[in-house]
Amino acid sequence: MAAFDLSEYRDRVQRVSANMEAAGIDTLVILLESHMSWLTGYEGDSDYVPQVTILRAGDTDARIILREMDLYCAYPTVYLDHDRIECYPEDHIGTDERSPWDVIGRRIAEIAGDGRIGVEFSASNFSHADHQALVRVLGDRELVDGSRVVTQARARKSDAELGYMRQSAAIVDRALQNGIDLIAEGVRQCDVAARITHDLIAGTPECGGGPNRPVTMPTGPGVAQAPHLKWTDAPFRQGDQTDFETAAFVHRYACALSRTSVVGPPSDRLLHVHNAVLEGFHAALETIRPGVTCGDVHRGFSRAFLPHGVRKKSRIGYSIGVDWSDLCFSLQDDDETVLETNHTMHLIIGIWEKEDAYVFSETIRVGQDKGESFSNMPRELFVR
Amino acid sequence: MAAFDLSEYRDRVQRVSANMEAAGIDTLVILLESHMSWLTGYEGDSDYVPQVTILRAGDTDARIILREMDLYCAYPTVYLDHDRIECYPEDHIGTDERSPWDVIGRRIAEIAGDGRIGVEFSASNFSHADHQALVRVLGDRELVDGSRVVTQARARKSDAELGYMRQSAAIVDRALQNGIDLIAEGVRQCDVAARITHDLIAGTPECGGGPNRPVTMPTGPGVAQAPHLKWTDAPFRQGDQTDFETAAFVHRYACALSRTSVVGPPSDRLLHVHNAVLEGFHAALETIRPGVTCGDVHRGFSRAFLPHGVRKKSRIGYSIGVDWSDLCFSLQDDDETVLETNHTMHLIIGIWEKEDAYVFSETIRVGQDKGESFSNMPRELFVR
Repeated sequence: MAAFDLSEYRDRVQRVSANMEAAGIDTLVILLESHMSWLTGYEGDSDYVPQVTILRAGDTDARIILREMDLYCAYPTVYLDHDRIECYPEDHIGTDERSPWDVIGRRIAEIAGDGRIGVEFSASNFSHADHQALVRVLGDRELVDGSRVVTQARARKSDAELGYMRQSAAIVDRALQNGIDLIAEGVRQCDVAARITHDLIAGTPECGGGPNRPVTMPTGPGVAQAPHLKWTDAPFRQGDQTDFETAAFVHRYACALSRTSVVGPPSDRLLHVHNAVLEGFHAALETIRPGVTCGDVHRGFSRAFLPHGVRKKSRIGYSIGVDWSDLCFSLQDDDETVLETNHTMHLIIGIWEKEDAYVFSETIRVGQDKGESFSNMPRELFVR
Repeated sequence: MAAFDLSEYRDRVQRVSANMEAAGIDTLVILLESHMSWLTGYEGDSDYVPQVTILRAGDTDARIILREMDLYCAYPTVYLDHDRIECYPEDHIGTDERSPWDVIGRRIAEIAGDGRIGVEFSASNFSHADHQALVRVLGDRELVDGSRVVTQARARKSDAELGYMRQSAAIVDRALQNGIDLIAEGVRQCDVAARITHDLIAGTPECGGGPNRPVTMPTGPGVAQAPHLKWTDAPFRQGDQTDFETAAFVHRYACALSRTSVVGPPSDRLLHVHNAVLEGFHAALETIRPGVTCGDVHRGFSRAFLPHGVRKKSRIGYSIGVDWSDLCFSLQDDDETVLETNHTMHLIIGIWEKEDAYVFSETIRVGQDKGESFSNMPRELFVR
């Protein structure tokens, strides 16, 4: 059963269709699996092989083309009539003789007719080799870049989407708190990661969590400032700092959360960094409301944060939604996207610098007149 | 600290370098993060932004170029001298004004000089838009497809690599058994997934598990045959069949394992399918030895399996290693890759058909004279 009502999917298709017309695209070839899921309900995890969603401007529903075995991932999760769910044969996998793009490309040509075709060139699962294979079938037809067409339509969240994000929020708050509570000298990092991940999946008595990403939790001297390291099986030692970044997912909707912990008393410098980060976070949060730009939020942060003299070169967040990053906007000085009610973002103050490490984040909704956090986690540096 | 000895990394670089010379490539631009990890030790999880490994034929070591903040993921995990670890600035992220490929492309041009440049066009994290951005910097220079150069060098595993895979095997055996033991009428699917994932990460007292992928465990009528669905928070019901596919990872080295379970007595048909799958699996396993081809293994399977009259369209496995799929060979009729000692593969008999669902797999090493499983899990249909 699809995660949303039929009317919500139809509304999404209409919004994408309107964006296509504005961009002069008659047929859009959608490649990102999160876009496929958003438009059809698909909950497989199959995009390491070619698959596409195809939408013609003005159509009521999209079509999807999957690998044959993935039909059985689609039937229980997608709202579409089965004649809009197509496949290419299994003997097109793992061979250089037959390419899935031959089948997919011919169907794209049939569906598109003479119309202008847009393709998501930026999709992370559409390699240059995939593009070459598609072009071999489509010949000299001009393909235009349609990478932004769906992302632009999904920045504002519906009440049902916000409902799933609130469920994710309750799950991630509990999971991270339980993990941090487990930290003590001698406990292995992997056992803390295991507990957090367990709770991200088990969820709450009301709602289980979905597939997640590995917990980011670099730990210890020279490691805590690594933004994309996970854990080891080394035991926590006195003085070890850990920078946690994680998210829970419900029907692919992410609520992300970050906190920092330290075993034993924190240094004066760490307390200074914590205070600087928290002031910057609050200043950014207080800037958020409908009508301000992403740049305004970043400048609000900088005014409060920079006087503390802590170096931070990276941005302070980005839009969040399906599969974590929504690719809609970036919280940095030169992004002039105007925030609207029910935009959602991961406001993350990460210090990943030579001198200092710290991370603090929450997932935020733009409310009627202010930014509202999904999280109820205490805004503390956790001392264990 | 890097996961392998210096001599092992240098040996890998030499093998890739030899493949480059055979392919007429002077400078190889390596994009897959698993390849970067294999050549340098990198254990970040950062490849949603551009990053590359660059190797010149004949060089002793590769170079890597990362996002600035990811320097701190590299320093604790990579064996390279720090002057071989470069970065592009943070202000190149999340903006259309400045592309990371501008910086990366200029360095590629400098390093390559007049030499012939190969690029991994098939890399899943190298979108067509990335290719366009790189070509804008490199101009009219011919780029050749170097997608196979590294994969060809990593099919045969060293003793140290096999050691990590054995640790993964012990972890995944225990995790899947503990998860299946938890199944009972009324227990939620998500709680079983949570237990398995907990144990994949906590590992054994001797060795923790690394970042993993979500457990595949489609459950119930019309769902169990979905090869890439995970779990829901519905409770197990009498008669529910679950097809489990999972893997543990140690330093990115995967050992995969699949079993099928059913709540309450299995139907005669399910027992028939189980017997057919097991006979096919054993026949394939008995075919495996150095000198046979992938096609031989598939035909060995078919001779034992087809007489049972169960439909199965998909292949029966593929090479496995770093980050699960090694992209080296495929266990299907028309793959004439010759197996060698210490090739490793995921031998997976998955029935994902309209009529039947079943999955059974183990990870196999090609031994001196026979195929050897990494797994000690009982070869049963698990009845709960």
